[in-house]
Amino acid sequence: MALMTGKEYIASIESLDLEANVLGQRTGELPNHPLVQPSLRAVAVTYDCAHDDACRALFRAFSPLVGDEVNRFTHLYQSADDLVNKVLMQRHCGNLTGCCFQRCVGMDALNALDSVTCEMDEASGTGYHDRFRRYLQYVQEGDLVADGAMTDPKGDRRLSPSQQADPDLYVRIVDRRPDGIVVRGAKLHQTGALNAHEIIVMPTRALSEQDQDYAVAFAVPADAPGIVMIYGRQPSDTRKLEGGQIDVGNRQFGGHEAVIILDDVFVPWERVFMAGEHAFSGLLVERFAGYHRQSYGGCKVGVGDVLIGAAQALARYQGTERASHIKDKIVEMIHLNETLYACGIACSAEGQPTPSGTYLIDLLLANVCKLNVTRFPYEIARLAQDVAGGLMVTMPSEKDMAHPEVGAYLEKYLRSVERYTTEDRCRMLRLVENLTLGPGAAAYLTESMHGAGSPQAQRIMLARLADLEEKVRFAQKLAGVRDQGPDG
Amino acid sequence: MALMTGKEYIASIESLDLEANVLGQRTGELPNHPLVQPSLRAVAVTYDCAHDDACRALFRAFSPLVGDEVNRFTHLYQSADDLVNKVLMQRHCGNLTGCCFQRCVGMDALNALDSVTCEMDEASGTGYHDRFRRYLQYVQEGDLVADGAMTDPKGDRRLSPSQQADPDLYVRIVDRRPDGIVVRGAKLHQTGALNAHEIIVMPTRALSEQDQDYAVAFAVPADAPGIVMIYGRQPSDTRKLEGGQIDVGNRQFGGHEAVIILDDVFVPWERVFMAGEHAFSGLLVERFAGYHRQSYGGCKVGVGDVLIGAAQALARYQGTERASHIKDKIVEMIHLNETLYACGIACSAEGQPTPSGTYLIDLLLANVCKLNVTRFPYEIARLAQDVAGGLMVTMPSEKDMAHPEVGAYLEKYLRSVERYTTEDRCRMLRLVENLTLGPGAAAYLTESMHGAGSPQAQRIMLARLADLEEKVRFAQKLAGVRDQGPDG
Amino acid sequence: MALMTGKEYIASIESLDLEANVLGQRTGELPNHPLVQPSLRAVAVTYDCAHDDACRALFRAFSPLVGDEVNRFTHLYQSADDLVNKVLMQRHCGNLTGCCFQRCVGMDALNALDSVTCEMDEASGTGYHDRFRRYLQYVQEGDLVADGAMTDPKGDRRLSPSQQADPDLYVRIVDRRPDGIVVRGAKLHQTGALNAHEIIVMPTRALSEQDQDYAVAFAVPADAPGIVMIYGRQPSDTRKLEGGQIDVGNRQFGGHEAVIILDDVFVPWERVFMAGEHAFSGLLVERFAGYHRQSYGGCKVGVGDVLIGAAQALARYQGTERASHIKDKIVEMIHLNETLYACGIACSAEGQPTPSGTYLIDLLLANVCKLNVTRFPYEIARLAQDVAGGLMVTMPSEKDMAHPEVGAYLEKYLRSVERYTTEDRCRMLRLVENLTLGPGAAAYLTESMHGAGSPQAQRIMLARLADLEEKVRFAQKLAGVRDQGPDG
Amino acid sequence: MALMTGKEYIASIESLDLEANVLGQRTGELPNHPLVQPSLRAVAVTYDCAHDDACRALFRAFSPLVGDEVNRFTHLYQSADDLVNKVLMQRHCGNLTGCCFQRCVGMDALNALDSVTCEMDEASGTGYHDRFRRYLQYVQEGDLVADGAMTDPKGDRRLSPSQQADPDLYVRIVDRRPDGIVVRGAKLHQTGALNAHEIIVMPTRALSEQDQDYAVAFAVPADAPGIVMIYGRQPSDTRKLEGGQIDVGNRQFGGHEAVIILDDVFVPWERVFMAGEHAFSGLLVERFAGYHRQSYGGCKVGVGDVLIGAAQALARYQGTERASHIKDKIVEMIHLNETLYACGIACSAEGQPTPSGTYLIDLLLANVCKLNVTRFPYEIARLAQDVAGGLMVTMPSEKDMAHPEVGAYLEKYLRSVERYTTEDRCRMLRLVENLTLGPGAAAYLTESMHGAGSPQAQRIMLARLADLEEKVRFAQKLAGVRDQGPDG
Repeated sequence: MALMTGKEYIASIESLDLEANVLGQRTGELPNHPLVQPSLRAVAVTYDCAHDDACRALFRAFSPLVGDEVNRFTHLYQSADDLVNKVLMQRHCGNLTGCCFQRCVGMDALNALDSVTCEMDEASGTGYHDRFRRYLQYVQEGDLVADGAMTDPKGDRRLSPSQQADPDLYVRIVDRRPDGIVVRGAKLHQTGALNAHEIIVMPTRALSEQDQDYAVAFAVPADAPGIVMIYGRQPSDTRKLEGGQIDVGNRQFGGHEAVIILDDVFVPWERVFMAGEHAFSGLLVERFAGYHRQSYGGCKVGVGDVLIGAAQALARYQGTERASHIKDKIVEMIHLNETLYACGIACSAEGQPTPSGTYLIDLLLANVCKLNVTRFPYEIARLAQDVAGGLMVTMPSEKDMAHPEVGAYLEKYLRSVERYTTEDRCRMLRLVENLTLGPGAAAYLTESMHGAGSPQAQRIMLARLADLEEKVRFAQKLAGVRDQGPDG
Repeated sequence: MALMTGKEYIASIESLDLEANVLGQRTGELPNHPLVQPSLRAVAVTYDCAHDDACRALFRAFSPLVGDEVNRFTHLYQSADDLVNKVLMQRHCGNLTGCCFQRCVGMDALNALDSVTCEMDEASGTGYHDRFRRYLQYVQEGDLVADGAMTDPKGDRRLSPSQQADPDLYVRIVDRRPDGIVVRGAKLHQTGALNAHEIIVMPTRALSEQDQDYAVAFAVPADAPGIVMIYGRQPSDTRKLEGGQIDVGNRQFGGHEAVIILDDVFVPWERVFMAGEHAFSGLLVERFAGYHRQSYGGCKVGVGDVLIGAAQALARYQGTERASHIKDKIVEMIHLNETLYACGIACSAEGQPTPSGTYLIDLLLANVCKLNVTRFPYEIARLAQDVAGGLMVTMPSEKDMAHPEVGAYLEKYLRSVERYTTEDRCRMLRLVENLTLGPGAAAYLTESMHGAGSPQAQRIMLARLADLEEKVRFAQKLAGVRDQGPDG
Repeated sequence: MALMTGKEYIASIESLDLEANVLGQRTGELPNHPLVQPSLRAVAVTYDCAHDDACRALFRAFSPLVGDEVNRFTHLYQSADDLVNKVLMQRHCGNLTGCCFQRCVGMDALNALDSVTCEMDEASGTGYHDRFRRYLQYVQEGDLVADGAMTDPKGDRRLSPSQQADPDLYVRIVDRRPDGIVVRGAKLHQTGALNAHEIIVMPTRALSEQDQDYAVAFAVPADAPGIVMIYGRQPSDTRKLEGGQIDVGNRQFGGHEAVIILDDVFVPWERVFMAGEHAFSGLLVERFAGYHRQSYGGCKVGVGDVLIGAAQALARYQGTERASHIKDKIVEMIHLNETLYACGIACSAEGQPTPSGTYLIDLLLANVCKLNVTRFPYEIARLAQDVAGGLMVTMPSEKDMAHPEVGAYLEKYLRSVERYTTEDRCRMLRLVENLTLGPGAAAYLTESMHGAGSPQAQRIMLARLADLEEKVRFAQKLAGVRDQGPDG
Repeated sequence: MALMTGKEYIASIESLDLEANVLGQRTGELPNHPLVQPSLRAVAVTYDCAHDDACRALFRAFSPLVGDEVNRFTHLYQSADDLVNKVLMQRHCGNLTGCCFQRCVGMDALNALDSVTCEMDEASGTGYHDRFRRYLQYVQEGDLVADGAMTDPKGDRRLSPSQQADPDLYVRIVDRRPDGIVVRGAKLHQTGALNAHEIIVMPTRALSEQDQDYAVAFAVPADAPGIVMIYGRQPSDTRKLEGGQIDVGNRQFGGHEAVIILDDVFVPWERVFMAGEHAFSGLLVERFAGYHRQSYGGCKVGVGDVLIGAAQALARYQGTERASHIKDKIVEMIHLNETLYACGIACSAEGQPTPSGTYLIDLLLANVCKLNVTRFPYEIARLAQDVAGGLMVTMPSEKDMAHPEVGAYLEKYLRSVERYTTEDRCRMLRLVENLTLGPGAAAYLTESMHGAGSPQAQRIMLARLADLEEKVRFAQKLAGVRDQGPDG
């Protein structure tokens, strides 16, 4: 089975009939639009790595389902080692792109659906698992990118889906037909949506019986009728349209998010993986979120490496590399970044098989991982700004640098250590700006906060998963106190 | 004496002959350029407040020098109360503008020069102090904005000014004439430079004898021949050019920085306040930096109030206002912000008169203030992003919201608590984006880090100003250890 | 009016008839008991300082009430300067004693009662204020120590006073007689109780009408019938009984807490300052707590100075004083300690008069002060342990050091920098142990956490005192959003 | 091969002839002394667990060396799983003992010596490895406890071993004989020394040629002639001698440290594992420290569980269990504790074989683990004190509680939630006191700081092990900057 190269992947996305679906004042923001291209190139890296001798082994895995090697981004985790390799692969992609490479969310959705459909079938006699496996075979054979779409708009946070003033504020089944279902609603924050072949929709929260129409999971092609994508904007996004190379910070790569509207989209039954089984909605959310919280222990660490490298490079260019306080800050950045990595590795290494055979990370540790991700990248970014210096936000534009008269002034006065050029220094400053205040920060900071669930979601999981009663018993035994159980 | 209104101030700036001086690909970025206007409007607030009944008393002070009320931004601090009122005035301006209002740096430069010229004269028999007072009278009577220009490019951080490959990397005297001096060099990070009537140049570090040509302080009009200003860019700055109201985050106000080049500028002696007295260079830096580190305990706190208010508003709009974890985060933001304020107040209340009669803040506490400012705004910003939610960086543009078809989708799906409009929610999200990732973050975060000196500069001052030997003696006495003095 | 010396004070306490009141297995723990003496000596410092030329001006204040100078610890704050001087005085005492010197709680109780009785009288026509002022005159003239007793046992935290299974878990009036009231209950955590001439009892929380018997404030002599004091134990407290000088860490000074039982104590009306006015209970708590939260910005800072000095001394003795990471940790300790001080100064400098004329600190900033005190001393202690090294907890006892054979080994092997003796090093290590793990830590850490109210109490105050609606309006104005007021 | 039970172990220690070796004023502090017994019982748990059905599999491992199961505490790690199991075993022991169980340091020393002797032999043709393996066989067959002794007194930290005023401040070879060597010096901070059968001595730092006499590693029986042990004291240690059950906090278990003097101890060659190979001294330190930094990701986490359980129990007893801020603090404690665990697991799961076949943890992650251990336990302890309340340090002694009159008062007034007894509450408070301010804190806090190397040691390793140049290259590639290599 031939795995696609990045170039083939880009061609495959460009061949989608997205024009009708991608709407807005900023129409034309299709894959070949300069705003979108960097994010498409970032996804392409996940393809090219499977052909790069230095890392192809890491990016490929043998899939029993198709009896052949697949790109690991479409793979079901068969072992704890597979889970660990996922993290290594993600860190590597972060290192190469310095941004979100957008393909994890689909991988995590596929793995979550695999085990949940299996357990749903066991409990309810439904036939979702076989159906899902056939769909997965299609994804693996096509080496496709899937967008994993979970987050609903949610409206008033105090109200359940069916209590909302507008019943469409969570995706729901509006019609059940012999050949499939019709769904309506929207999914927000859809990372890389315009770069995906497929969209996999899942519910966003645990649901009770009165919300059973909201318990729906399915896959649709990205260019299915009724799908509307509205491109999101990021800090400093339009620098990509200025035609320069420096101010954009990260010349080649970037990410994007979109709002996806499902305007009465028809989904044939063979692509439906949950339709009313509200009791399994929470489990699916927990599994998907768990996998995705693990992911951040890889991808954000990879981006962190880039930011540490940029800070170190600037210290070198500016003559502060040997100052003890600078060295100390670099060490602190490393320490925080590797702590995130340790969490990613630990929840993977402690992974266990689910009934479907697919491995699940240790959920407690995956939540610990993500909760740290909501904190440490912010501190790493703060330290990077400390090391980089204020010029990052006061420096004139690259057009000024290219201007004959003004450029000469800047060349003269922004020069630092003789060995390095003024331009190199400015380029590196713009990379730090990109990652801490620009489009890169949308992914490295804000997405670290809210992606895969906001910090409070992780805290709730920690409260639930930590065996507090056991800890109380340990303490009572040592204190010589009789156990009376929890207060009733 | 009539104090200017904001409108009169803007007219006065527009009447400057800056065209020849503001250069670059982005020429025309004069006061009336849409990139510059918001920052001009922010300065204008410092004028209008002196005419607003609600706060005029705070913005005016009696100046013995001119025998009349002046705008407090041109005032010499006559008492500890004056120092406290400065902080209150700055917090108020931060509240009204949500950005850097740019007029403090000149105020702090004037106060620092006042005491240092006096002490220089006492020590060296020079006549700088009277000369400076005459200049100050001119500033007070004209109700002028002065840019306080301290930070040199510095080149290779390991080398002193005269050791640099290019001797111009610190501003220096290149010629001494009967009628004045000629100076060459540049000043980076010049906040509000295009909005100033005057530029006050000071050295950037303590200097030894071989660097005495670098010990130079003076004032020049902003439109003096040889002055070149190159406008700096900020994150998402070009949103100001898009013609919208929402995506820009802060509709009315903003700040800017510029590189100022001094290309052999002539300064007549009556505007020269230091010319070779290298032994006083460090003192001037310490005084100016001290005042400016105090300032951040006012202005950044004022901006912090806005960010806290924005987070609280979003919690309200989104239905999470009563969630205990949200309330707790808001309280934490308040706590951190008020800690900064406490530091600003404390270093002011403990202020003492200098030989010139002008009051100086407690330098130790002013450095403590600023060191906290290099930390807490980052944490406040992180918490604001937590409360605000990820939509801030994934939301489509306001052009999409205005589009008939797309806008309807967004209106429907981005609606949260019924009582509040979708547009209001989006506006508030953009304000948080502005302050944590946009042009506001350049001031609220990066400038908090590096403005008035990077954190290591404050740490060096703390090590110097804290009486460690006294603390050792206290400990020795309690431990019953004979004092042997510091290890030789 | 002659202010007492420390020696006279100790004699006055020893003359109290406490024997019947101080009970327990550890009877005899009267002032002259070696467990209690160090704490008595610490209080005596507050007397001696009023006779020490170096600081007598700080420790004395003119009291209009008695028309003479009084010890500032019995003074009503007449100005913001008085409030600032209180903090300076407390820092000085902390510097001299390295522990809690126990006299602040009474000072804060007196000041709180002064304004609240005045406002109660104004609102309710009661006559408490004059009565209180007469009592205060007695305290000032006698130069007495008062214990301010607020914290009730509280039983089940979920239940109000009258809902408790045992109605005595909050102090209450059990009988009202023509000549006075009879009270029953207990007060926990009574710092310095055995060293006080007087005990001033106040309610511990805001109360509603059904709890009006709990709204009671009064003063009784420490040796009044029915008062029982039970001495609390502290970490490593019995080292004081070992007869050594080194292992005790702080040779001279210490603190103590006691449980005070009020076993149907009679209080004549002239010493009753609240008896049923439940509506003013919350105000009294808020005022007292506010003053006491300010106090910690002085006393704990003074102890912090000692700990910083001890760490610095150890770095010197051990040869690490010049290591950059050690210097950096010392600077960090200074920074945190001075931030606490800044908060103490700021809430004082912003003080305002109450209707009684007595000045009240800025309550918001006083709560900010205390909330920082629940954090920074722990970090300072952690850093002190880092600098000190592990020997602090692994070092043999001083008896081993005095043993001929063993002592020789220790003298040889625990020697560090030649210039300093092994014994000096060990003494200093024990001081750090005292302050971070020993009896000093009970005051420097645990009391910093819970004294004057636990952190959540401060957070509730911050939520109440910060004008959140104003901040929301600032944000709305800048975002261009119409104000709709808080969500109903 | 029969593994010992705890009882057999205790008997085996009691049969050692230690009397002559354990010296000091506090002679008789032999295993059966009440000060020492709790620590002996803690070690015994490591034996009993190997016979407990619930965990015997975890505590046993097959040793190829002896061809039988051994106690895992004497085992060479044969795989990454073995490394993970070590951490699980340590967490379990921490759960059961709530203290340091003292047997890890020998385990880590054995594993470090195994690989280093192998690599030394390969490089230098020495024969240490076989010799070491024979010794290890003796340890495994005897199921012995070994003390791993690394930390020298170090004297003046600025001077190398041979530069010290006293050449004995680092352990050194003072004589080389045909049958062995004679060593002199001391090792500080020897955890559990009095409970060990064997003492394994290693150098404490990297050494250069002039310090080659200090490059010495060997094993001696604990009762060898010339060995002197001086028992260290801990906070509140003498509560163990008071005969009570409550105030001691942890009734059964504890730890201890001792100074070990090597007063010209003879070591036969078959027990010498390094004698002059200074080039391998640093490697041995790095390996041993690495293993021991991993260990803290298990044992301290286990103790952390106890402290979390104690805080939760107290919240329950006191009626605050459901308060949102209390729940949030408990979650934070869990989060920090599990982050440490994640680091312990991650460095284990990433373990790799050394040339000897024995597995080594990932050194970078092990250092990250330990650096977090120098921080998080302090914050967990702070939060535990917050949840527990101040009564922990103000509560009277258990003798008071047992006193007829006083006890009745305390029983009445310290009662909280009806369902739980006053005594249970007090017992639990004492456990928290033990772990945060008492003898348990010596291990849980100070040892977390300095054990296995102080934080700066880990930072130096991070700077060395993180591939900073690779990170710079990633950043340069993304910024479009040509790589010039590190500044020369």
